[in-house]
Amino acid sequence: MTGSMQVRELFKEYGGEVDATLRNFLLEKDQGLEMYGHMAYFMGFADENLQPIETYGGKRFRSSVCLMLADWFGAKEPAVPVASAIELFHNFTLIHDDIVDGDTYRRGRKTVWNVWGKDHAINSGDAQLLLVYQILSQNSVLTEGQLLQIQHFLTKQYLRVAEGQYLDFTLTTARLDDHFVTEDRYFEMIGRKTAALIAAATKSAGMVAGLGEPEQEALYQYGYNLGVAYQVCDDMVSIWGTSKQTGKRTGGDVLERKKTLPILRALEQLPESGRRSLLEYYHDVTDATEKDVQEVVSLLDSIDMYEQMKKVVSDKADIAKSMITILPITTDQQQTMGEVVDILLPDIKSA
Amino acid sequence: MTGSMQVRELFKEYGGEVDATLRNFLLEKDQGLEMYGHMAYFMGFADENLQPIETYGGKRFRSSVCLMLADWFGAKEPAVPVASAIELFHNFTLIHDDIVDGDTYRRGRKTVWNVWGKDHAINSGDAQLLLVYQILSQNSVLTEGQLLQIQHFLTKQYLRVAEGQYLDFTLTTARLDDHFVTEDRYFEMIGRKTAALIAAATKSAGMVAGLGEPEQEALYQYGYNLGVAYQVCDDMVSIWGTSKQTGKRTGGDVLERKKTLPILRALEQLPESGRRSLLEYYHDVTDATEKDVQEVVSLLDSIDMYEQMKKVVSDKADIAKSMITILPITTDQQQTMGEVVDILLPDIKSA
Repeated sequence: MTGSMQVRELFKEYGGEVDATLRNFLLEKDQGLEMYGHMAYFMGFADENLQPIETYGGKRFRSSVCLMLADWFGAKEPAVPVASAIELFHNFTLIHDDIVDGDTYRRGRKTVWNVWGKDHAINSGDAQLLLVYQILSQNSVLTEGQLLQIQHFLTKQYLRVAEGQYLDFTLTTARLDDHFVTEDRYFEMIGRKTAALIAAATKSAGMVAGLGEPEQEALYQYGYNLGVAYQVCDDMVSIWGTSKQTGKRTGGDVLERKKTLPILRALEQLPESGRRSLLEYYHDVTDATEKDVQEVVSLLDSIDMYEQMKKVVSDKADIAKSMITILPITTDQQQTMGEVVDILLPDIKSA
Repeated sequence: MTGSMQVRELFKEYGGEVDATLRNFLLEKDQGLEMYGHMAYFMGFADENLQPIETYGGKRFRSSVCLMLADWFGAKEPAVPVASAIELFHNFTLIHDDIVDGDTYRRGRKTVWNVWGKDHAINSGDAQLLLVYQILSQNSVLTEGQLLQIQHFLTKQYLRVAEGQYLDFTLTTARLDDHFVTEDRYFEMIGRKTAALIAAATKSAGMVAGLGEPEQEALYQYGYNLGVAYQVCDDMVSIWGTSKQTGKRTGGDVLERKKTLPILRALEQLPESGRRSLLEYYHDVTDATEKDVQEVVSLLDSIDMYEQMKKVVSDKADIAKSMITILPITTDQQQTMGEVVDILLPDIKSA
């Protein structure tokens, strides 16, 4: 079995445990109140008629990595509610994000608002956020003090996710040449919107196990840097990935005039004529065509932006990997943690 | 000073303490992230430009009654974060409700979505719900066990509020003659949407003070029955109140075809011709006029529905008041609790 296959098997195993916990938790809630069914539907536990189905869901990356790490640290049992809470939180954000973005499909299925309307999607999402707190407290192993400490940490990270969403809105509505549309602001945004929750998943595994501060910090930095690299990768996919790879239109982020890292950096580096073309596309072109998008991509390619982004990703990946040796785990487990990074950050042009 | 004046003074005092706590809490959060300003704006601590203003807010009924009771039980200090959390939760629900209802103004000020858009209103509301948990844990008096117990109870009540919102959606979209549009369903809905949170405010005062189970249950029933009566009163105002009393159009709930108690009961009691008229109005009349609304009100008046509703309210008020004697408070305080009930449930026709 290759390393990457082994990681996928591990994630399937740990993700499966989280799924089983969440499935039971949500199905017990129902009792005629379909709002709980909306959540079960979105998690992939039920169909549109709210009939139970074999789980069809996301990759459960955040909860899998949390549970895997906690298991290695000898604290799997108390980590199950923690990992489940983080997964439930992540999916809550997606339910509300889908409303905001107007997305009608996700993972090949209709979004909650697309099935039951925006009113229900707002309310069922709100209720799901309350369940995040309820499931976390279903914990018979941790002391009350530990539980409150972990909850305090998670709440802070959840708030960062909302702050990241706020920063994303401000970036989206600003002009590309606005003074606060900067690379720093972009990293601040993805650091909160994406990386903070992955760091929450990795660090909380150490908190549950009662590891020391240096190990907890290493876990945080592992998750955080992995999260940042993951988001940059995602932005690369949306520009250079094929429809087959993304499941969406090629160049989606360019079409939607998203201010992602390749664009921000190109604005800094392009010669004046290219800079003008890019600004013109972002501000003046209405009804962008495939050809417009291709021209923007050509501008990026003219300054090797794909390779530059690969460098950003591999630098962050290296920082994440450098944290691994600090942890009290076997050499095999260290290798697996390295493979987790590689699997999450594929080179799409060679895929 | 009359009793009702005294209650208003007490509420101003206790509500003022909660406001001071929330104001500091929210203004400290800001630091360039305007989403925290959205919350401060909605609480009445800031204007649309997010500049601090003298507090302009709601009546803070839930938090005032919580803090007042806890003070009487000798546990004011640990009740401040609890009352603040409940007030923050209530206002979070309003931010999202305003989106759902499409309401552009509340308390004479623009709603959050009306100022910053629905995307921000969804996200800032979500973040406010996270702060509900953060502020609750800012508690140096309660033990960790007490804190978790109170949080567990509050989360259950918050979920009931979301369930009530869900039930309200289902009642709103159903036909008036649908088999599940019943008086029972209506009471189930308002019991969750409105009464559960008022009961949370009153019972948690007893929990903070460590009162016994019977006293805690009495506090719950006091708040719950007061909450149910309060909602029925509110429904009466929307039918029989003048624009001056409601700040909205006369007969608003009738115009919006809301299925409130007077309507549901009228459908049961009206003779066949009246029943048909009511159903026709609810299902077939488009562009209802003032005259249509007046006809519906006449139908209700023909079977003394106003007096019937007064009876429902006074029955619930009596149950609430019957709980007071169980509590370890002075006769004066008992009298004040009775006056709280009376103030919250005015007879609008004699007002």
